[in-house]
Amino acid sequence: MGKTLRKLEVSSPVPADIDIANSVAPLHISDIAQELDLAPQHYDLYGKYKAKVLLSVIDELKGKEDGYYVVVGGITPTPLGEGKSTTTVGLCQALGAFLDKKVVTCLRQPSQGPTFGIKGGAAGGGYSQVIPMDEFNLHLTGDIHAITAANNLLAAAIDTRIFHESTQSDKALFNRLCPPNKEGKRTFNEVMLGRLQKLGISKSNPEDLTPTEAKQFARLDINPDSITWRRVMDVNDRFLRKISIGQGPEEKGMVRETGFDISVASEIMAVLALTTSLPDMRARLGKMVVGNSRGGDPITADDLGVGGALAVLMKDAINPTLMQTLEGTPVLVHAGPFANIAHGNSSIVADKIALKLVGPGGFVVTEAGFGADIGTEKFMNIKCRYSGLKPQCAVIVATIRALKMHGGGPDVVAGRPLDRAYVTENVALVEAGCINLARHIKNTKAYGVNVVVAVNMFSTDSEAELNAVRTAALSAGAFDAVICTHHAHGGKGAVDLGIAVQKACESVTQPLTFLYPLDISIKEKIEAIAKSYGASGVEYSEQAEKQIEMYSKQGFSGLPICMAKTQYSFSHNASEKGAPSGFVLPIRDVRGSIGAGFIYPLVGTMSTMPGLPTRPCFYDIDIDTETGRVIGLS
Amino acid sequence: MGKTLRKLEVSSPVPADIDIANSVAPLHISDIAQELDLAPQHYDLYGKYKAKVLLSVIDELKGKEDGYYVVVGGITPTPLGEGKSTTTVGLCQALGAFLDKKVVTCLRQPSQGPTFGIKGGAAGGGYSQVIPMDEFNLHLTGDIHAITAANNLLAAAIDTRIFHESTQSDKALFNRLCPPNKEGKRTFNEVMLGRLQKLGISKSNPEDLTPTEAKQFARLDINPDSITWRRVMDVNDRFLRKISIGQGPEEKGMVRETGFDISVASEIMAVLALTTSLPDMRARLGKMVVGNSRGGDPITADDLGVGGALAVLMKDAINPTLMQTLEGTPVLVHAGPFANIAHGNSSIVADKIALKLVGPGGFVVTEAGFGADIGTEKFMNIKCRYSGLKPQCAVIVATIRALKMHGGGPDVVAGRPLDRAYVTENVALVEAGCINLARHIKNTKAYGVNVVVAVNMFSTDSEAELNAVRTAALSAGAFDAVICTHHAHGGKGAVDLGIAVQKACESVTQPLTFLYPLDISIKEKIEAIAKSYGASGVEYSEQAEKQIEMYSKQGFSGLPICMAKTQYSFSHNASEKGAPSGFVLPIRDVRGSIGAGFIYPLVGTMSTMPGLPTRPCFYDIDIDTETGRVIGLS
Repeated sequence: MGKTLRKLEVSSPVPADIDIANSVAPLHISDIAQELDLAPQHYDLYGKYKAKVLLSVIDELKGKEDGYYVVVGGITPTPLGEGKSTTTVGLCQALGAFLDKKVVTCLRQPSQGPTFGIKGGAAGGGYSQVIPMDEFNLHLTGDIHAITAANNLLAAAIDTRIFHESTQSDKALFNRLCPPNKEGKRTFNEVMLGRLQKLGISKSNPEDLTPTEAKQFARLDINPDSITWRRVMDVNDRFLRKISIGQGPEEKGMVRETGFDISVASEIMAVLALTTSLPDMRARLGKMVVGNSRGGDPITADDLGVGGALAVLMKDAINPTLMQTLEGTPVLVHAGPFANIAHGNSSIVADKIALKLVGPGGFVVTEAGFGADIGTEKFMNIKCRYSGLKPQCAVIVATIRALKMHGGGPDVVAGRPLDRAYVTENVALVEAGCINLARHIKNTKAYGVNVVVAVNMFSTDSEAELNAVRTAALSAGAFDAVICTHHAHGGKGAVDLGIAVQKACESVTQPLTFLYPLDISIKEKIEAIAKSYGASGVEYSEQAEKQIEMYSKQGFSGLPICMAKTQYSFSHNASEKGAPSGFVLPIRDVRGSIGAGFIYPLVGTMSTMPGLPTRPCFYDIDIDTETGRVIGLS
Repeated sequence: MGKTLRKLEVSSPVPADIDIANSVAPLHISDIAQELDLAPQHYDLYGKYKAKVLLSVIDELKGKEDGYYVVVGGITPTPLGEGKSTTTVGLCQALGAFLDKKVVTCLRQPSQGPTFGIKGGAAGGGYSQVIPMDEFNLHLTGDIHAITAANNLLAAAIDTRIFHESTQSDKALFNRLCPPNKEGKRTFNEVMLGRLQKLGISKSNPEDLTPTEAKQFARLDINPDSITWRRVMDVNDRFLRKISIGQGPEEKGMVRETGFDISVASEIMAVLALTTSLPDMRARLGKMVVGNSRGGDPITADDLGVGGALAVLMKDAINPTLMQTLEGTPVLVHAGPFANIAHGNSSIVADKIALKLVGPGGFVVTEAGFGADIGTEKFMNIKCRYSGLKPQCAVIVATIRALKMHGGGPDVVAGRPLDRAYVTENVALVEAGCINLARHIKNTKAYGVNVVVAVNMFSTDSEAELNAVRTAALSAGAFDAVICTHHAHGGKGAVDLGIAVQKACESVTQPLTFLYPLDISIKEKIEAIAKSYGASGVEYSEQAEKQIEMYSKQGFSGLPICMAKTQYSFSHNASEKGAPSGFVLPIRDVRGSIGAGFIYPLVGTMSTMPGLPTRPCFYDIDIDTETGRVIGLS
């Protein structure tokens, strides 16, 4: 590292994020790539400030040792967020620009929904940001658009197939699926041979199939009520949550209730995040289950003949996007699966590439969505299980504000002024709240990593309050606990954190220990996770029981579990702060992302399509038509 | 030109398009850019074979003279298509690689719907193609995805605004739209000031508005039944043609019938195609009308506060994409509006950039969708009217096959073998069919351009048949008529066409004459176009009359007209071949794309969302996971 690093001039009070982002001229991304020893054949430029790093880099660097692998999680947050992304970026700016380490930040790509809706962008904040901010938050290199296109092609394939099956005889259907070529010869292609194999038919010449076999092959006989595949759109469009489709006269009364999710909730996003190679992605896309046949068999994308087309649509999306921080350190942005119904972590392939690029002694810092009970747990038990990678250090981000809330402080509500308790010293409240931090430390440590607590400091925090957190963290088993001011000072404000993380990585000794093995039952796995939340037991709805039975029967019980639970409490009840225990965790329903590779129990209701407020962010967003610059992004 | 040109080795019989495309290694696009005297600051790379040419090039080259401007239209086609794109590409390969001219091909970006549905790709064919074929047909540089995102953000804004207006008092609504800032002060932003101006309220301080004015400002009072804005998706999904939205419990019964169109049918695509600059695009997007208030006033994107965000989503899409032909000549791919409900021509900005890049003596060849009655007519009366550009030459592509059909040959149906009449000599049938060609020549000549007929030759065409077309074309007033074999031979097969086009351009003398002026009534304009079709009159439905009255009252009668008519006949009846006359053209409905800038009368029913067949193209499309290559694209 070195040549691309940039000295920040910081102002106080900290200006708005967009003003800081616009005050720094980004370097050409090929300069950033060069510092990582990437040659032009290793990446594709997407304009001047973004490049897709090609997956082939993993193979080329196969022989090289990995760097240190650090995951950033958080304590149970307030609705305002505790600065996990900002800390992830700040830590990397410290490691790269002040501690002379090779470092890559791995971040999720944000959805455009919140950018134009309520939340605004997600590039970090203050003097710890990814730039250019507008390119990070908009389109990026088209991965989410590719997901939307692939997801909806599959959806169209499902309804159209049901329609065509309903209007055609077995013979007509078979003949249309396997039409004779110019020489009058019929052939099966690869994806069709796969379906035959699944059906136990070991014939490869269409003419040899018996009428029964031809029917089995051609008629998927999808049960419309069993379809779990929904359409997606990367827009906050609440009116699409529940819709009826097929109301046109040409669809002949085949009306069906369904709905749209936001694109990042698509299983294809989870596939992108969990895949390890192009052949693996092709296989996972083909295995995605969209519903059942009337006979109860799972119907996949490959049964519909569309798995290959989905892979083609996703062929560029599999390459992570290289960007830069305010201080000129490299960032890989890739995948952004929902943190509730999916696992909320950026991609395996980005982390793998990054670990090779930084090499021994270098650092890859990756963020896990939500609190550590969800994000870090899924990072370990799902993401690391599929990647085979082992982190050395887990950072847990805490704020005095959130700890006070856990200690019994009044409600924190987005958009309302903070209660006085949060802006004046109250050491007792902080100490009481550390019970939440302590449980996250204990749970995270159990994976065999060293835990470093990062206190993301606010100007209203007092010395005594900060000391209280340090003491509590260390007594709960943290390797270290460090006060950080990267929001106000950039990398310079996270140098102590960087040093602590380095030491934590260098001194880890234990192997990675999962919370549960894969070869136990779905219920046993759910119960292991529930126990880590502090639950005394688990209660299943009738629907959940039915689904668990179905997935077990279909042969999917060996998959890891991805809990869909609120991030605002260890329990299912968002208002239970601190470290609740003794509660019974209710499982309302159980669903599967079979291609991505996990079963997800629903603890309560998860919204998968946000809405727009009366005055959405878009009201302030415009383009300066003189300069072409984006204005009003927050 | 010169250094990037590539000699083709042609095989006979002509191999499959994808095999030809894959047999040529494309040059790095920066080499193509360099040959056009583009420096790295003039474009953004998108991988190795695509680059977005920045709009600023137009300003930089302001002082330079334009090259010749050639539009390629066609006779009334068979359902198989007569090779307009192929001829456009072949002509450019001839001009660039054999006649030593500076040349740029301007093409439309294809929708992904047909690529995975029925039609397959759209990069030309045989030895006249744009490469890489997969990149041309998939994602390209994300423009259609940007359109989808922008279109659907506007759609979400409409329904959510109606919802919030229905649940809030005037005061609450106003306060939410103009919330106090940290200092307790309320302000209007630019887009809000625009709405106030439209309402005739000349106040700029929110506190000064009377309650009535505040209500006028805050309550758009959209009539749900008047909403013309539909959602879009770049997928053939027939089940979305007619849907009901808002069926979720949180939407409180605000159910509404609507539907999805394919993305290329979005008005935003038409805006992209017709815009001339960034400020112009921002203005057009803001002016798009989505429906009416209950009082009958048009409601625009800027009334909803979202015009700026739409422009931000489209800020990169405004830059055309540079690609290359098989013989290494440059191509600009940009915009692909529907040829029926929109004007079916690629973008004005791509043509403008191209005309400057080729400079005096160079050639820009651009394609107009459908037959010349629709494509060339809209090219002249809509596109050239907005661009201020004047073409020197119009090519009309004809095939013996289509002329025989017009002469009374049997039906030509896609997917069925051709009747014997089409593959054996029948000069009389060809001669009879030239009546169709003759009318296209006469209509096109009337714009003040020289018309060159290009006969796209098939191996079954006879010398006598081809001579018959030449004779008929010349006697109908064509400047020249040339036989072309670019499908089989690449540019070499279109050298004569290139020479004819050059002469036609050099010898044009007349100014551009529009078919109608803008300052006559909507009906007079419709009737002028109908007359060019051969109609003796026009008949308006009650609905059409109502709409014409509404648009006239709203002040939109000065816009050009974009007829939505079948491409398979001069008349409204697809089965009337040749040159029908004396019919009365029925106008079923009249709609407006106010932001894009045209009124479109519907002659019959236009499908704006294709469907998938039983065995869609996607069945054959897959990725070779060893090489990363796309297979099975057609």
